[in-house]
Amino acid sequence: MLPAHFKHVPLDKSYRLMNHGPTVLVSAQHGGVTNVMAAAWACVLDYGNTPKVTVVLDKATRTRELVEASGFFALQLPTKAMATLTCRVGSDSAKDVPDKLLKHGVKTFTAPDTDIPLVEGCVGWLACRLVPEPHNQQTYDLFIGDVIGAWADDRVFRDGHWHFDDAPDDLRTIHHVAGGQFLVTGEVVQG
Amino acid sequence: MLPAHFKHVPLDKSYRLMNHGPTVLVSAQHGGVTNVMAAAWACVLDYGNTPKVTVVLDKATRTRELVEASGFFALQLPTKAMATLTCRVGSDSAKDVPDKLLKHGVKTFTAPDTDIPLVEGCVGWLACRLVPEPHNQQTYDLFIGDVIGAWADDRVFRDGHWHFDDAPDDLRTIHHVAGGQFLVTGEVVQG
Repeated sequence: MLPAHFKHVPLDKSYRLMNHGPTVLVSAQHGGVTNVMAAAWACVLDYGNTPKVTVVLDKATRTRELVEASGFFALQLPTKAMATLTCRVGSDSAKDVPDKLLKHGVKTFTAPDTDIPLVEGCVGWLACRLVPEPHNQQTYDLFIGDVIGAWADDRVFRDGHWHFDDAPDDLRTIHHVAGGQFLVTGEVVQG
Repeated sequence: MLPAHFKHVPLDKSYRLMNHGPTVLVSAQHGGVTNVMAAAWACVLDYGNTPKVTVVLDKATRTRELVEASGFFALQLPTKAMATLTCRVGSDSAKDVPDKLLKHGVKTFTAPDTDIPLVEGCVGWLACRLVPEPHNQQTYDLFIGDVIGAWADDRVFRDGHWHFDDAPDDLRTIHHVAGGQFLVTGEVVQG
């Protein structure tokens, strides 16, 4: 079952979910194994009708193996309320802590029309198809994905824009600095 | 002359200037021509003693030509006070508006021990040497740089951490969403 407030975002607006540079959770599954990790190094690469993203996935991670094996992954935006969860899934590896999702209370559901796991409680989700670039992956741990589906929590993102000011503060997105310290997404300013 | 509050940041802490995903200004010079553009799609690629960054530079931009010709560029973090300037240098091209820096009040100075122009008023600066990757540049407009020098305004970044809460609100960094709308970097939360 899909979460309440989970609403489709048109592909040509999907870049706006990540344009402000939040920390993301990366999820993937293969052969019935699902994993989730945190990544501060994720970015928009293209927009319009062919949106793309980049994300850096360390060779030591189980999630990277699932991305490479399945050819799919999701990037999603955890909230202020999920800061501790984000730290935990970023520091524990499923290679050492096989039940890390259970241990840290990470629940997933499946993205519509795909087999890609998405994380409950996030406020934006981008389902992606890996664009194989072996040189980037091997040399820089850099992965590129075509965005094939996007959704957002309509309490904070609707009509192509963020509306954090109208919603509970706990639904704001977060930006990791270092050592578990995050900067919360703040007020709007028009340039 | 270097700006007041312009302080060296050790290379192994330089990723923390961009880890929270702010919008950046990209600057470069070649043959006496200096230009500056805005980019929301910039990201950390590596840290430690070999820090790297990525930035997406459209083929239509003059700044890209200067980066390709000189092999160097800088990424720097504009402030809330610079939101309008950031929009203007992001929408005007020096190809159409040759005096765009003068027109929008953009002043530069030279990064220590380099020929790389840096923008006054920013609160973090990363001087970078281009890592040539022709396939990424041509296919994705994606540029990789080795960070060779880093500095920050010590009113907001010192001892390897951001301290926005102790400083004037106008010195906060900004995150572009779309159409000149930015989200300002907000409060700290510990995960």
